[in-house]
Amino acid sequence: MAAAASADDDGPGALIEALRALPGVGARSAQRMAWHLLQRDRAAALRLAQALSDALDSVHHCQRCNTFTRHTLCALCRDDSRNPALLCVVESPADLSVMERTGGFQGHYFVLQGRLSPLDGLGVEGIALDPLLARCADGAVREVILATSFTAEGEATAQVLGQVLQARGIGVTRLARGVPVGSELEYVDLSTLAHALGDRRPLA
Amino acid sequence: MAAAASADDDGPGALIEALRALPGVGARSAQRMAWHLLQRDRAAALRLAQALSDALDSVHHCQRCNTFTRHTLCALCRDDSRNPALLCVVESPADLSVMERTGGFQGHYFVLQGRLSPLDGLGVEGIALDPLLARCADGAVREVILATSFTAEGEATAQVLGQVLQARGIGVTRLARGVPVGSELEYVDLSTLAHALGDRRPLA
Repeated sequence: MAAAASADDDGPGALIEALRALPGVGARSAQRMAWHLLQRDRAAALRLAQALSDALDSVHHCQRCNTFTRHTLCALCRDDSRNPALLCVVESPADLSVMERTGGFQGHYFVLQGRLSPLDGLGVEGIALDPLLARCADGAVREVILATSFTAEGEATAQVLGQVLQARGIGVTRLARGVPVGSELEYVDLSTLAHALGDRRPLA
Repeated sequence: MAAAASADDDGPGALIEALRALPGVGARSAQRMAWHLLQRDRAAALRLAQALSDALDSVHHCQRCNTFTRHTLCALCRDDSRNPALLCVVESPADLSVMERTGGFQGHYFVLQGRLSPLDGLGVEGIALDPLLARCADGAVREVILATSFTAEGEATAQVLGQVLQARGIGVTRLARGVPVGSELEYVDLSTLAHALGDRRPLA
């Protein structure tokens, strides 16, 4: 944007710069967004400014599960009807949301808000390890389900967390690997297929 | 997001909704952006909130050329060294910016802040036609260069503007169509090639 800024310096240049801080937004997208907000939808610009200020003021981490909440404890942690013996560990609030939408889990969650990335030198300082260990020590948790992604980073995270938790005598499981529902076998990648074969189950 | 909001309603749900108003941003992108702003870069969130408020308060249209500015007239309109006889009409501030970066134009600009889209039912009410006609009537403008895009919408816009301006006795030109610099002929689309042939010029 340095070049474009010369014609922009008394216009929305600062807004364009600020929009570029959003993940996945480059110079052109930021320019298009700024134009849209100023020319087509100033109400949306106002709503966004207010939502940002409001979120910065009011949204913080749940003291139990580390997801985002406006309260001391999030709605799920406040829900007494859920099973306190099961703790599902996810990388992000988005992952928590998708797990909830399966409708198949009635326990509690813990949100790491990150993952290990050994290749990038990101170690356990990038995830909420100590709060997780404190959470697991509540006396009620019997099984920790590691639901980090099945990427290199997610697998590394699950590996490290599994070792730390097992060393403390906590039962640890991992989501099953296998063939996605609806897949034609021909198009499933070989690594997934090998895992599905290794983890084959008796016919129900 | 309706489904996701159930787990999010005491978190950054309002921020995610507000981010979705940005062009090109869907539910997943908005969720990722909100996470990034709240978890990784709160300073960027604050800067964005402030830049939005500031732009809404301070950035408006230049009274002469209709681009965005913080002043009554933008920097280019205030520049006396530019040629007042040439007026280049562009769709957006981004197009103005790219024209300026060519370094090949020393006249003034007019920014339509839109374009005609007959197929979508968007007529001249979507562009700053009256301000353009007023601008052209300043007694100094001798030639209006139509630099709208070479898309169906940009061509329609140029067509309509050309007719209106010529009916008022104003000289109107259009950017040249032709083979882009650096192109291998084999990969140039046929319509462009046909125009380049029709508009061929004597060898310099």
